[in-house]
Amino acid sequence: MRIVCQQLSPTFGDFEANRRASVAAIREAVEAGGQVVVLPELTTSGYVFKSREEAEAVAIGRDHPIFGEWAAEIARAPGGEGFVFAGFCELGDDGLLYNSAAIVDPSGLMATYRKTHLWDREKLFFTPGVDLPPVLRTPLGRIGVLVCYDLEFPELTRTLALHGAELIVVCTNWPLVEHPAGEHAPEVVIAMAAARTNRIFIACCDRAGVERGQEWNEATSVVDESGWVIATVQDGTAIADVDLRRATHKRLTSLADAFADRRPELYSAVVSANP
Amino acid sequence: MRIVCQQLSPTFGDFEANRRASVAAIREAVEAGGQVVVLPELTTSGYVFKSREEAEAVAIGRDHPIFGEWAAEIARAPGGEGFVFAGFCELGDDGLLYNSAAIVDPSGLMATYRKTHLWDREKLFFTPGVDLPPVLRTPLGRIGVLVCYDLEFPELTRTLALHGAELIVVCTNWPLVEHPAGEHAPEVVIAMAAARTNRIFIACCDRAGVERGQEWNEATSVVDESGWVIATVQDGTAIADVDLRRATHKRLTSLADAFADRRPELYSAVVSANP
Repeated sequence: MRIVCQQLSPTFGDFEANRRASVAAIREAVEAGGQVVVLPELTTSGYVFKSREEAEAVAIGRDHPIFGEWAAEIARAPGGEGFVFAGFCELGDDGLLYNSAAIVDPSGLMATYRKTHLWDREKLFFTPGVDLPPVLRTPLGRIGVLVCYDLEFPELTRTLALHGAELIVVCTNWPLVEHPAGEHAPEVVIAMAAARTNRIFIACCDRAGVERGQEWNEATSVVDESGWVIATVQDGTAIADVDLRRATHKRLTSLADAFADRRPELYSAVVSANP
Repeated sequence: MRIVCQQLSPTFGDFEANRRASVAAIREAVEAGGQVVVLPELTTSGYVFKSREEAEAVAIGRDHPIFGEWAAEIARAPGGEGFVFAGFCELGDDGLLYNSAAIVDPSGLMATYRKTHLWDREKLFFTPGVDLPPVLRTPLGRIGVLVCYDLEFPELTRTLALHGAELIVVCTNWPLVEHPAGEHAPEVVIAMAAARTNRIFIACCDRAGVERGQEWNEATSVVDESGWVIATVQDGTAIADVDLRRATHKRLTSLADAFADRRPELYSAVVSANP
């Protein structure tokens, strides 16, 4: 199964430009053999909003035709089985804005996820989601989705893995942070540890470009179930061929198992509001 | 505050040799300015047991005089405030064997912790602990302790951080595992992610040598609250000067906080026996 991450550079506030770029990126990913195609967080809008009004101006509902356009492209994936995971600025039926991920298959928008852990100024514009991310049972394997800062909560990656995810896709915009020479971007280190401790694959699609002076890590990476980076970006695209069956069992040795060795009765502080 | 990790090479089954080596290692660490002195897992016994009888032959109770000997050494720490964290093979009052960590201050054995997540063949000899690791309120800061495989359960590092730990000390024996060139040992990657997501320091003291053919990662590392390795082993010793106050608050930006941004109501799968 082939994962293709397209590290796009959305044009701030220009929905139509981003619509065209996203359709083209999915087409190219499918031409490259992609079955799981991942685009960044807020692909359709850009990220650095200064006001709620700016976000609302580029927000779309779940009935927007862009999802049908993405579906038409992913329908050409090898074997006719494919999935797009892409961030978009969502205007809910409730009139609220969400930092959401769309999951699109050849039939259209099959699921959405509203980011539950909002980063920094996102709290000024967006409403946090109230539902856990879905774990999709697909013919390609079981796939969960997160958006950016969600990844930095190990309870959440663990939860998706316990719910059966063999692959977690992360649509992200990682603001540039300094890190020591020779080290991965810090969010990649977090992905590596989450992959290894949960014995799952993790595919993170970051963005590129400069938006209102903001640069990005441009650290798109696919990590295998042992926690090692198996693909990074070449010419804007990261491609990895993965066997998700390697993430199905959690056995480490004949006597050790990453999940069976857990001691849930000791972890109650994790679910306490005031531990 | 200075942390000194002594990456010893215990002599299998020779308690008296390990007793002498541990006392000497604490003395050297204190002479190097160490206030938090860390020794490996099962420092007093070695690791690669073939039978319960072998483990029992080198097991000691909590009343053994070795802890007084360690206390006498740490009493000479700068300012008279110091703590030793060291693994030992414990014979409990219940006649059971535990893979334990001793916490010793100048007054003697102040606390113990029985490893709660036993690795592989340890299950054949040891009984898992039923109590969470302690988080000690000390004049040097709040310090938690784990033993080896415990570190690979992000619920547990999170729990200690939620309980106030600013530093987690890990007494460990990491069997040698292959990893890609240029990467840290995988357990160090896990420590880095746990440190960053919890904004705490983590000091891991691995062991050296070859025991019954088993080699070790020899990857003793101290990690800061941003998740970067700040000390590794030179001549068997890793030394790091840390300001634990940097781990007290969890604020990331004026609007983001690594703890306040958690969504405990979404994490119930983590405490479910069958999520």
